[in-house]
Amino acid sequence: MEKRKVILDCDPGHDDAIAIMLAAKSPLLDLLGVTVVAGNQTLDKTVMNALNVCQHLNLDVPVYRGCGQPMIRDKQVVAPNIHGESGLDGPVFAPLTRQAEPQHAVLYLVETLLQSDGDITVVTTGPMTNLAMAIRLNPDILPKIKEIVLMGGTYQLGNVTPAAEFNVFADADAAHVVFTSGRKITMVGLDVSRKALCLPSVMARMGQIQTPAGKLFVEIMTYFNQTQKQVFGWDGAPLHDPITIAFLIDPTVLTTKAMFTQIDIRSDQSYGRTNCDFFQKSGQQPNSFVAVDIDVAKFWDIIEAGLRAYDE
Amino acid sequence: MEKRKVILDCDPGHDDAIAIMLAAKSPLLDLLGVTVVAGNQTLDKTVMNALNVCQHLNLDVPVYRGCGQPMIRDKQVVAPNIHGESGLDGPVFAPLTRQAEPQHAVLYLVETLLQSDGDITVVTTGPMTNLAMAIRLNPDILPKIKEIVLMGGTYQLGNVTPAAEFNVFADADAAHVVFTSGRKITMVGLDVSRKALCLPSVMARMGQIQTPAGKLFVEIMTYFNQTQKQVFGWDGAPLHDPITIAFLIDPTVLTTKAMFTQIDIRSDQSYGRTNCDFFQKSGQQPNSFVAVDIDVAKFWDIIEAGLRAYDE
Amino acid sequence: MEKRKVILDCDPGHDDAIAIMLAAKSPLLDLLGVTVVAGNQTLDKTVMNALNVCQHLNLDVPVYRGCGQPMIRDKQVVAPNIHGESGLDGPVFAPLTRQAEPQHAVLYLVETLLQSDGDITVVTTGPMTNLAMAIRLNPDILPKIKEIVLMGGTYQLGNVTPAAEFNVFADADAAHVVFTSGRKITMVGLDVSRKALCLPSVMARMGQIQTPAGKLFVEIMTYFNQTQKQVFGWDGAPLHDPITIAFLIDPTVLTTKAMFTQIDIRSDQSYGRTNCDFFQKSGQQPNSFVAVDIDVAKFWDIIEAGLRAYDE
Amino acid sequence: MEKRKVILDCDPGHDDAIAIMLAAKSPLLDLLGVTVVAGNQTLDKTVMNALNVCQHLNLDVPVYRGCGQPMIRDKQVVAPNIHGESGLDGPVFAPLTRQAEPQHAVLYLVETLLQSDGDITVVTTGPMTNLAMAIRLNPDILPKIKEIVLMGGTYQLGNVTPAAEFNVFADADAAHVVFTSGRKITMVGLDVSRKALCLPSVMARMGQIQTPAGKLFVEIMTYFNQTQKQVFGWDGAPLHDPITIAFLIDPTVLTTKAMFTQIDIRSDQSYGRTNCDFFQKSGQQPNSFVAVDIDVAKFWDIIEAGLRAYDE
Repeated sequence: MEKRKVILDCDPGHDDAIAIMLAAKSPLLDLLGVTVVAGNQTLDKTVMNALNVCQHLNLDVPVYRGCGQPMIRDKQVVAPNIHGESGLDGPVFAPLTRQAEPQHAVLYLVETLLQSDGDITVVTTGPMTNLAMAIRLNPDILPKIKEIVLMGGTYQLGNVTPAAEFNVFADADAAHVVFTSGRKITMVGLDVSRKALCLPSVMARMGQIQTPAGKLFVEIMTYFNQTQKQVFGWDGAPLHDPITIAFLIDPTVLTTKAMFTQIDIRSDQSYGRTNCDFFQKSGQQPNSFVAVDIDVAKFWDIIEAGLRAYDE
Repeated sequence: MEKRKVILDCDPGHDDAIAIMLAAKSPLLDLLGVTVVAGNQTLDKTVMNALNVCQHLNLDVPVYRGCGQPMIRDKQVVAPNIHGESGLDGPVFAPLTRQAEPQHAVLYLVETLLQSDGDITVVTTGPMTNLAMAIRLNPDILPKIKEIVLMGGTYQLGNVTPAAEFNVFADADAAHVVFTSGRKITMVGLDVSRKALCLPSVMARMGQIQTPAGKLFVEIMTYFNQTQKQVFGWDGAPLHDPITIAFLIDPTVLTTKAMFTQIDIRSDQSYGRTNCDFFQKSGQQPNSFVAVDIDVAKFWDIIEAGLRAYDE
Repeated sequence: MEKRKVILDCDPGHDDAIAIMLAAKSPLLDLLGVTVVAGNQTLDKTVMNALNVCQHLNLDVPVYRGCGQPMIRDKQVVAPNIHGESGLDGPVFAPLTRQAEPQHAVLYLVETLLQSDGDITVVTTGPMTNLAMAIRLNPDILPKIKEIVLMGGTYQLGNVTPAAEFNVFADADAAHVVFTSGRKITMVGLDVSRKALCLPSVMARMGQIQTPAGKLFVEIMTYFNQTQKQVFGWDGAPLHDPITIAFLIDPTVLTTKAMFTQIDIRSDQSYGRTNCDFFQKSGQQPNSFVAVDIDVAKFWDIIEAGLRAYDE
Repeated sequence: MEKRKVILDCDPGHDDAIAIMLAAKSPLLDLLGVTVVAGNQTLDKTVMNALNVCQHLNLDVPVYRGCGQPMIRDKQVVAPNIHGESGLDGPVFAPLTRQAEPQHAVLYLVETLLQSDGDITVVTTGPMTNLAMAIRLNPDILPKIKEIVLMGGTYQLGNVTPAAEFNVFADADAAHVVFTSGRKITMVGLDVSRKALCLPSVMARMGQIQTPAGKLFVEIMTYFNQTQKQVFGWDGAPLHDPITIAFLIDPTVLTTKAMFTQIDIRSDQSYGRTNCDFFQKSGQQPNSFVAVDIDVAKFWDIIEAGLRAYDE
């Protein structure tokens, strides 16, 4: 079977790091490149974290440095209370020798998509700045995007504000560009990721995996579980980002529903709200498949298999 | 024990009608008056519905006609798809002889509160126009309001729009006035009312009550269950409004959490969003106790007791 | 000839004071009442100022106390930098013995209009809270309002913010109610009032009028000219509010143009902008006659005649 | 004397065309490149118009194709009622042989600025999409921008909406990026361009210039005068865009005032309003020099000299 071609756009970030791990070794996926954006931390840090993960796990995938700022807002929102000062606090990495590719992530997206046969899936697990910039720089890439799977948004309660989820809030204008792109979109929001809590039982299970990936997972999640507990009170951190990759590996892990989703970019108070027309009352055509449920057991099986895919 | 004095401001409406029933005969409550506002239907209809319920159940409580329009918006939103053309479709009432009091509901609120000892609880189960108009007409009533218990809002998914719940959406500006009033507020939103579904088992249980209230309940809910099924897909209608009265009868029916709640009145798309600071991240002092859970079994016990309080 | 019946709703305020003077003695106007609102200063102060002017000039007109707060916003904007701590700094008045009527201004508006033959013009020279509250409390007054002449707004540059003029900004929500009321509206905005500058030559001319009104005018404008110079740099204060009354006395003092005017109440930054469709590009029916030019010479003639109408 | 290096970013457009003419032959300016954006018409048309002008006048300057869509909004606003179906209706051009450069305008801006000594002035006479995209794609260009001179905005009355001027309205989000860039900005808005009316006397004067540029000017303005008359009622078209170039040639043509200018990007109704703090009341540091007056006689002298600079 042919592998599904994927570009992973991310802002590592603890859960992004695990998404990279999962995507890079899946026998079902061909991870063409990792493009990095500011989000969980500033761009220098998220790029370094992506490189550290790749170096540590000996992953061959090229890493591209993208946008360090949202498209329109003058200020970057970061999340040190969740991800620490480095953006990936917890694990200790060897000195970094890997380097990002010289090409800008946005130009990489444009060129790679243009030259493709329309068979590349773009996964975003951070603010959607890179993808939206690419779309606006060259709209000819649109028909070349097979589909977009993104972690972001919520039709229920936000996390960074009562209205909004972090990735969308950090660049809601970019999210608006993506959601009005006309491409197939699967939105994996807090509505399902809050069900994928990395509880102590999960930690115990993954702690038995003796691969480098398994060990890194535990180091990463030990830190992440602590901050999620402090800030939100969860007994285990929601493992937001890897759900996108798990969904590519096995779509049955999510139940989705077609909805018309609109991003509020014209409110100060509700900036970044993903207004998902759950009850289909707007009369608008759906523009997204929104995840409404997750098979949690299946999800952890996918994670475990992913961690075990690395050589001990 | 002294009864708690209550003014019930409502827009009947099926669930409002049941709130009236419950409040009027509770041995713990002294229902001083029912003030009516446009909402589920236009003002003429909601006033007529309130009078019909009072006449049908032989309730002595005076009914006051209030505002027929939101404070600011030029258009009234009504909900015929949920409550029918009359606003209380389903039951058939005898010809109406009861009349509303001559005094305007807003002036009744102002005068009654001013003359009180500060011991009146105001319950709103419709758009908050009447209460907000009273507050702005005469702010001296504020220290006279013991507390406000309201059905409205959601910190999760809206019903009339993805962002907003109907009562708040129908006059979010009024809701803003109420939420910035500085008085004690308990917000009963969709977050709990969607757990109080009037499922077939509930219908069967209440169907055995041979009082006029029990019979009216069944007539009302038979219709309401149908429209809620059609519009939202629920297997039983959420019994929104009576939860406020149940909470006055037994506060342990709800679990509440102190939150800073802000109404979005400056967005077109998210107008009426109740942005509840669930995770207490804003640094703002809480201005409301928001219901986060409901003891459903206890709720139905209160409803049953309320329906049985009427003479057969 | 029959006098035109007028209710003057104001927030004195220097220029409001002169509007009162002008209206109270005009042989063409029958000033039924003065209703007062918070605006240039808090309500206690604007009521006192209205009473002081009436007492000082021995005017018989009843004064009604209205709203002390905007309809929706929780904070009152006042203008001490323009009108001083008292709201009418400059003149020194004798101890105040006059009192406001017991009736609330909003209720006075409702009752007077309801009982009228539809022949009353409502002039507002402050925030439109009182009129808008009356409209929403009892919409039956709408067909009873002959017309509305208001000082407020601008289709060019604001004064309190770059976008907005003070009276509209202080309660833009109320202005929205008025502009969507369907009644005939004449909007006298900064676009013309900035041409009616009380320059030294005007001061010299009015300084020769030996009536109490003439003397009061000079005292009032001496102060007002100073603050306008400090804040805006004008060589003479724009005499905003009296233009409304001058227009009732002689409509040829203004050139007006029918426009569709929309109040921005959903923006934080441009809150209170009066978006006047000057070029008639919106396709919307005009809802207002907006003043686009003023015959300045005629205006000062009207002012002079008004001041001379008082007995020496 | 060294020539001032300029990149002209435009959306020709009648007045843009004249800006190109003026910039290309000025002995004081070194026009490095013309970058084109959608605006007065769609991108294909504005690029063709830029090329037509360059070919017709035998100008050597390279033309770069930029963005065809605003950064965030999904819909492009164009102005066929002002500029015709082609975007430059009126003149008839020979078949086009000139071609745009292969490089994207945004990448040209990024590379040229990065490689410069910080001595390039960027002039924008259309929506600011290209410049804003370049800034966000690579913020390292910011210190390399000598200054920005732009035609856009108004602190008085808008043209495309009551609140907003066309260039800013067409991509207010991009304008926000530019106005928050921290670079020196001179804003030439409708406030001055509406004083630079191409009245019949101007047409007569320019009609005597026998150069190709003089002839093209008359052809262009004959059409432009007609549509401006139809839509806005002016007796001569405001010659918006060339004022930017005239200002570079002779800065004394404009009187400017330092102001803090904020773009409203969070309002539906006032989207694109340039809120210029004319009276310096906000307490914010100025971020722009806003043109408040124009020496009209001097402006037409500059235009005449510019048209005569071409060989007959």
